[in-house]
Amino acid sequence: MTRLYHFTLSPFCRKVRLVLAEKRIEVELVEERYWTPSKDFLCRNPAGKVPVLRINGLTLSDSQAICEYIEETVPTPELMPQGAKSRAEVRRLCAWFDDKFHHEVTAKLVYERVNKRVTRGGYPDGQAVMAGARQIKFHLDYMTWLLDRRRWLAGDRMTLADFAAAAHLSCLDYISDVDWNRCAVVKDWYAKVKSRPAFRSILADQIPGFIQPPHYANLDF
Amino acid sequence: MTRLYHFTLSPFCRKVRLVLAEKRIEVELVEERYWTPSKDFLCRNPAGKVPVLRINGLTLSDSQAICEYIEETVPTPELMPQGAKSRAEVRRLCAWFDDKFHHEVTAKLVYERVNKRVTRGGYPDGQAVMAGARQIKFHLDYMTWLLDRRRWLAGDRMTLADFAAAAHLSCLDYISDVDWNRCAVVKDWYAKVKSRPAFRSILADQIPGFIQPPHYANLDF
Repeated sequence: MTRLYHFTLSPFCRKVRLVLAEKRIEVELVEERYWTPSKDFLCRNPAGKVPVLRINGLTLSDSQAICEYIEETVPTPELMPQGAKSRAEVRRLCAWFDDKFHHEVTAKLVYERVNKRVTRGGYPDGQAVMAGARQIKFHLDYMTWLLDRRRWLAGDRMTLADFAAAAHLSCLDYISDVDWNRCAVVKDWYAKVKSRPAFRSILADQIPGFIQPPHYANLDF
Repeated sequence: MTRLYHFTLSPFCRKVRLVLAEKRIEVELVEERYWTPSKDFLCRNPAGKVPVLRINGLTLSDSQAICEYIEETVPTPELMPQGAKSRAEVRRLCAWFDDKFHHEVTAKLVYERVNKRVTRGGYPDGQAVMAGARQIKFHLDYMTWLLDRRRWLAGDRMTLADFAAAAHLSCLDYISDVDWNRCAVVKDWYAKVKSRPAFRSILADQIPGFIQPPHYANLDF
C-alpha cells in the first residue's frame, strides 16, 4: 500500500496528494506531527520534513523529487510536457511557488496564523502577516499576467505547475486569505483546478479550531 | 553564445557553472547586481534572482530547472542517473542542499558575512552567524554518513547532487567556514570534485574585499 506521511495544511503535501489522485494512485494518509518528530520519522526523512511517501518499497522525500518520481513511473495522465523547453518552464514555476511564493506568502500567512497555533509555536508575527497580505497581490497579478497569455500556468495544458500553485492557494483559501475579487482570471483558473476529482480529498480537509469559509469547498464560488 | 547572468558567490549560480563546464558548454559570464535589479533583469526573470541562463534562444531561470534542461539537451557526460529511484535520490539531495543547507548554513554564514557587505545591506547578525556555524556540523556529519556508504553523495557515480553540495561548500570555503578537520571523508570527496576541470573557473573567483584562504584553490589542501 502506498502511504503518505503528511500535514493537512502543508502545500507541499497537498501538491503530492493532487498528483497521486490525478494519477489514480490510492494512498493511505498518515498525519505527521513534524514539529515533534519521532525517531521513526527522522529515519524516514532526516530533513525532518513532510511529505514522505512510501511507494514501491521505497521511502521518498522532497515534494518535487516525489512528483517527478511519480511522473516517471506513472506517466499517464501526463503532468510534465514533452520537450525540454516546456519542462523547464514547468519546473521554473514549481520553484516559483514552492520557493518564492512559499517564502513571501504561505509562510507569512498560513504558518503564522495556523501552524503556530497548531504547533503551540507562539503568537502570529503581525508584521509578517501584513507583509504576506501585501505580497500575495504581486503574485496574483503575476498569475493574471501568465493566464492572460496561456490556458494553464505553464502553457496550453494542465501540468505540475498548476498543482503546485493550487496547493498553496488552497491553503490560503482555507483561511480566507485570497482576494478572489482582485483577479477574475485566476479565479476562473482555480475553479477549473478545484473541480477536478483529484481535489476532492483536499476540499474535505478539516483543521480542528479553524473552520473553513463556505466558499472553500464550493466549486462555483 | 550561451550567457549566464550570475553572482560570484551564489551557490545556485556555481551549481549551473559546474554543470555547464562539465558538459563543455562555453559560456559568457555576466555579473548581475541582483540587489539593485535593472528593468532588463526583471524582464529576464521576474523572480529577481540569479542565475539566469540564455541558451538556444531561450531565457531560463531557477537553478534546478536550468540544470535539468541542460541534462535533457546535452546528456553526456551524464549527471542524472538512469532509473526513477536513483533520480529521486539525486533530486532529494539537490533539494537538501539548495533548500535545507542553504537556509540553515549558507544564508547564515555567506549571506550574513559577505553578501550584506557587498550589497551594503547592514552588519552581519551575530546570532545568525553562530547558528550557521553550529548547523554546518550537523550537515557535515550527515554527508559523512552518506559518504561512508557511497562513493559519491547519491550513489556510485558523480551526479548533480555532488555539484549542488560542492557549490555551497565552495562558497563557505572561500570565507574559511568549513572545518575540514572534522570530516576526513567529506574532505576526500571535496578534493575529488574540486580537482575536476569544471571547478577551475570557480577556484579563480575573486570577491573584492575578501581574500580567499591559501587552501581555497589548492587541490591538495
